[in-house]
Amino acid sequence: MEQERTEINDLGEFGLIDFLTRNIEIQNASTVLGVGDDAAVIDHFGKQTVISTDMLVEGIHFDLMYVPMKHLGYKSVVVNLSDIYAMGATPTQITMSIAFSNRFSVEALNEFYEGVYAACEKYGVDLIGGDTSNSQKGLVISVTAIGEVTPDQFIKRSTAQKGDLICVSGDLGAAYLGLTLLEREKRIYLDSPTVAPDLENQTYIIGRQLKPEARKDIIEFLQENDIKPTSMMDVSDGLSSEILHIAKQSNLGVVIYEEKIPIAQESKEIALKFGLDPTAAALSGGEDYELLFTMKQEDYDKIVLNEQISVIGYMADISEGAHILTKGGNKFKLVSQGWNAFQQ
Amino acid sequence: MEQERTEINDLGEFGLIDFLTRNIEIQNASTVLGVGDDAAVIDHFGKQTVISTDMLVEGIHFDLMYVPMKHLGYKSVVVNLSDIYAMGATPTQITMSIAFSNRFSVEALNEFYEGVYAACEKYGVDLIGGDTSNSQKGLVISVTAIGEVTPDQFIKRSTAQKGDLICVSGDLGAAYLGLTLLEREKRIYLDSPTVAPDLENQTYIIGRQLKPEARKDIIEFLQENDIKPTSMMDVSDGLSSEILHIAKQSNLGVVIYEEKIPIAQESKEIALKFGLDPTAAALSGGEDYELLFTMKQEDYDKIVLNEQISVIGYMADISEGAHILTKGGNKFKLVSQGWNAFQQ
Repeated sequence: MEQERTEINDLGEFGLIDFLTRNIEIQNASTVLGVGDDAAVIDHFGKQTVISTDMLVEGIHFDLMYVPMKHLGYKSVVVNLSDIYAMGATPTQITMSIAFSNRFSVEALNEFYEGVYAACEKYGVDLIGGDTSNSQKGLVISVTAIGEVTPDQFIKRSTAQKGDLICVSGDLGAAYLGLTLLEREKRIYLDSPTVAPDLENQTYIIGRQLKPEARKDIIEFLQENDIKPTSMMDVSDGLSSEILHIAKQSNLGVVIYEEKIPIAQESKEIALKFGLDPTAAALSGGEDYELLFTMKQEDYDKIVLNEQISVIGYMADISEGAHILTKGGNKFKLVSQGWNAFQQ
Repeated sequence: MEQERTEINDLGEFGLIDFLTRNIEIQNASTVLGVGDDAAVIDHFGKQTVISTDMLVEGIHFDLMYVPMKHLGYKSVVVNLSDIYAMGATPTQITMSIAFSNRFSVEALNEFYEGVYAACEKYGVDLIGGDTSNSQKGLVISVTAIGEVTPDQFIKRSTAQKGDLICVSGDLGAAYLGLTLLEREKRIYLDSPTVAPDLENQTYIIGRQLKPEARKDIIEFLQENDIKPTSMMDVSDGLSSEILHIAKQSNLGVVIYEEKIPIAQESKEIALKFGLDPTAAALSGGEDYELLFTMKQEDYDKIVLNEQISVIGYMADISEGAHILTKGGNKFKLVSQGWNAFQQ
């Protein structure tokens, strides 16, 4: 069966927006007015509004050779929601702008929006506006996420205290290893299009790359257990880069232990296969969208039974610098090798 | 004197953000937390939050051959603020994301941000976040503007009433004619680089294209004079397209008079020179960023002395359709020939 292909031109901009937003159902009482006017309107009922924005560019942040449009739509939303959760806030609305060249069909954009709406539904956020436009080349996505938080209960990066425990959710490095695997399969495919891709047993790391989730559950756990992190951010650029952000902005030093960094068994196995160091993937890989936070030592008992939270080190005096103690007993300076689009 | 050129790579992403945001001073008490964390935080003190977003793409929405970077930064902000004013709201914050190829230097981006900050200062808004990224080709700009409004006092497009007067601020068509002039000069320059551009006496229309302003003054006038428009939007795609939006969303017909459409003398002269119909430029040209609104007939006395507001027609029953009565006594159906990126 041939796939349908409707040209964007057949709909026009307003027709396209109508088409892509035809099934929107408002989920948040705070959404007073959504898509279809000059702007959307939000009522936050005495809460504070939290805003975050991210841009994703084809060829820089994603490769449509192995990223399905639906996954891309989903991930574009999730990476922004992750920033809202990292403030200790609850995401409530997003705006979505995309620019695309004429190689994209209406069906392709519709798939993208299916992913967008799937993420909106899963996280209970409303799509309230956006913009669609042509581009000269490729796809550019810009998402702004809006959330709410009880006044002054948001959690910054700059408020960690000396002696605080450093915690991270889930496991790290898998998204980078998934990307490495997909890049390898792409090269093999380009060299020999008849070779079937060898992705078996790699669903975990590929899923972590293609369909990341934001740690709503961790924020809920922290709230339910009355744990207020002293600082928090999400791990989008790699653990090392993020820890250095918290250390620098809190004017502190940091010590982390290699053996405490949570890395999935699947990640260790694929790293071994590729001849990569799993710790390096966790420190510098990026795109894990886990939560990195610090908390007072006395809160340790509250998290110790949660297998989704690992204590990996502590905040030290600024004079101690930022170090990792390795399994082999060595001490290395942490450097920001986080994923950096400008050095790729 | 040679112009300095610093490569983006020399700064890195975080260095670049630090550099571009180094002079930010918060102007709004509602800005609780600005640039530098996962998200920004806003407190709206019992007001409703209004959000709008726009994407501008090089080669589609602007041409850097004749648009200076500083003007581009200014305009990128203003076109978004215009949407917030069009809701009857006051803009308070923006986020700014840009993706750019490596042909841009730090100096070029700095110029762009000078324009951004100039607009922020003029309109009293805070830049609270954003994202910078590489692109494969050209410059892509995505701005989200946030504003506040007294609960339920925002003005939609869908609430015009039969018999309401249709008003428009300022004058129309000049931005399109300015663009036409710049495009012509570009072609002449490309054909014969030694011919000096003939832009004399055209500062008005060129200014309307390169450095539009949002009609903050009109919103203030309406508030001060206790005029509540029954519907409102800004004129970004041409008068015809916008009037049809209001008519369609309000489920009404519309009658406008050609002779009442405000067109500047400079616009008429250049239209004559180019063999263009100035009314067509006003109806279909776009990018004027004037305010189009409807109001009750009894409010007429309140606006009649304001030379910046023209009454151009009235809302009619839906059975009457949407028409323009020309100076020559003819009646034409209004069609949406508004600027449409997908048909260019």
